Amino acid sequence: LSGIESTPSAPTNPPIEGIPSLGRVTDAVKYEGGVVWVLDRRAYPFEKHYVRCASLEEVAQSIEAMVTQSLGPGPTAGYGMALAARGLANESSERQQRGLELAAKRLVATRPTNDNIRLMTKRVLGAVSGAMAVGLTAEDAILQEMDRYWRDLGAQLERLSDLGAHLIREGDVILTHCWADALLIELFRRALERDVTFSVICTETRPYLQGARLTADAVAELGVDTTVVTDGMPAHLMASGRVTTFMAGADRITLDGHWVNKIGTLGIAIAAHHYSVPTFGLGFHPDPDAPTASDVTIEIRDPSEVLHCRSQRTASMSAHGYYPAFDITPPELVTAFITDRGVFAPSSLVDYFREPE
Amino acid sequence: LSGIESTPSAPTNPPIEGIPSLGRVTDAVKYEGGVVWVLDRRAYPFEKHYVRCASLEEVAQSIEAMVTQSLGPGPTAGYGMALAARGLANESSERQQRGLELAAKRLVATRPTNDNIRLMTKRVLGAVSGAMAVGLTAEDAILQEMDRYWRDLGAQLERLSDLGAHLIREGDVILTHCWADALLIELFRRALERDVTFSVICTETRPYLQGARLTADAVAELGVDTTVVTDGMPAHLMASGRVTTFMAGADRITLDGHWVNKIGTLGIAIAAHHYSVPTFGLGFHPDPDAPTASDVTIEIRDPSEVLHCRSQRTASMSAHGYYPAFDITPPELVTAFITDRGVFAPSSLVDYFREPE
Repeated sequence: LSGIESTPSAPTNPPIEGIPSLGRVTDAVKYEGGVVWVLDRRAYPFEKHYVRCASLEEVAQSIEAMVTQSLGPGPTAGYGMALAARGLANESSERQQRGLELAAKRLVATRPTNDNIRLMTKRVLGAVSGAMAVGLTAEDAILQEMDRYWRDLGAQLERLSDLGAHLIREGDVILTHCWADALLIELFRRALERDVTFSVICTETRPYLQGARLTADAVAELGVDTTVVTDGMPAHLMASGRVTTFMAGADRITLDGHWVNKIGTLGIAIAAHHYSVPTFGLGFHPDPDAPTASDVTIEIRDPSEVLHCRSQRTASMSAHGYYPAFDITPPELVTAFITDRGVFAPSSLVDYFREPE
Repeated sequence: LSGIESTPSAPTNPPIEGIPSLGRVTDAVKYEGGVVWVLDRRAYPFEKHYVRCASLEEVAQSIEAMVTQSLGPGPTAGYGMALAARGLANESSERQQRGLELAAKRLVATRPTNDNIRLMTKRVLGAVSGAMAVGLTAEDAILQEMDRYWRDLGAQLERLSDLGAHLIREGDVILTHCWADALLIELFRRALERDVTFSVICTETRPYLQGARLTADAVAELGVDTTVVTDGMPAHLMASGRVTTFMAGADRITLDGHWVNKIGTLGIAIAAHHYSVPTFGLGFHPDPDAPTASDVTIEIRDPSEVLHCRSQRTASMSAHGYYPAFDITPPELVTAFITDRGVFAPSSLVDYFREPE
């Protein structure tokens, strides 16, 4: 991302009523005619600034370079599509449609494991085809769809966090891994509203330290006692009875209950199973297009990321690195998935799609 | 260790014949009348220098501050005792004896989990009481005992590495954790001498990165293909069939087969058990003074170490840290211990002390 400008502030998205912490999510990306501003999560909270993306390619590169993470890549891709539509405004409607399909393909290729980008590009493409028929520009159609997305996200967050908050018991010590964004933070906020006292242990989550930087900061901001440990400590904490619950996000949930999440989740889930610690994956919904684990591509990232920490070399110059960014926890190690329509055992996830009677 | 001088070189200990890599171990600490030079393992291999300790207290502080690690603290404590003896040379033999006992107590208190320091101070104290009776100074008696220690260590290393090398099979991919010092490196050298081809994966081992810095560097120096991964990756590597063996050092082995080692070992051992990956602990001998796990004190180190990486802050300023430095893997998760007298199942470790028939 060399050459891409960044700034400590950016235009403010309109507030969304009734969802107190949605501000935190909407803050992750902002749109201003022709520019997408992406909150730089790589150095947060040590530095707070936005990366300015004035082209689709810059948006794609910001996602690839992990400027935005967890929930962030979805709406960033949505606004990237608006940017692409703006650039295609003078083309024929057919060329616009084709151009937007190529833009979606570029965005989906940035991070192959998480399905937020795929779902978002599909969503805005759907909005465009209808809107252009009634004379709306593709850019406006996408921006209207983004407003609907934020409202839908707020409602989903409310349902999921309400369901999840009921699983937190007085005195719980909840271990979490990586950064589950507003799903975890809203859930914790709801639990606090119910006057439940609990504490949280965050793994630091190397190499990007999302747990130490993002999760720990957001949890502590709620007023919850927050401890950071290294990624090698969860088993010992469980063996010594210090953890009552393991709860982390899900980048993807397969229909048969495989939990795809940040590398390290599997090891913690195996230890949790060994010590009978209840284990919950947080995700809005299972992926109807991923019946099982083999339908999910595990992203392999640049190995040099493993050999450095915050840009400082940490490993011998004679060694190489290996960086699979996600792992897959099989259903037998998961107690339940917390979704926006209910808490489901891994074996009954298909009920998510059952029509309410 | 502010105010303690350091230097890129230090006097050279005499070579010990027949043990090619013992140079690496003896390089870890050097003695020059009145000064102990300790190789600084905290920044190695990025910076190579020695910390100069001119008093017992400086030696103790260098051990506490992790200047030296793994096998290093034992001989460093031994030379620290020589330094203490030198300072007591003009006292009555009774006061010397009492002063040395206090010195030993200070050194043992530096790192409560590993038993090398305790064994070493006991060893040199034993040498002193005999030697002073025949007119030798306490300092000389200790230095003579240190020469015997290096020779004994060389012989132990030869036996252990020869036994262990036979467990490495063609094509093995050996996962290791933290820094098992010459025990692992000599074992690998022996396996290479037997023309076995294998590769090694090192966990980086946060917070001190001993795996990424020390182990990876020493293994790669042998010409072995060396990959560094983060501490969250072992389970995924095993799930995807990338690991054939887990092998790591043992800071202490209890008589009933509990494996005390760097924090993180337990989590890897649980995953290895889950995926049926053979798991070996490397240690010269079980500790006859530790019948079981409850006889071992787990060192809790400064939590700020978990919140930093190579002196750079890595965690939110609002979180606290927790740093248990070791964990304890129960016998049912260990395939065998590789010692200097044989490869023992955890349940038959008492055979280590059986007199040869």
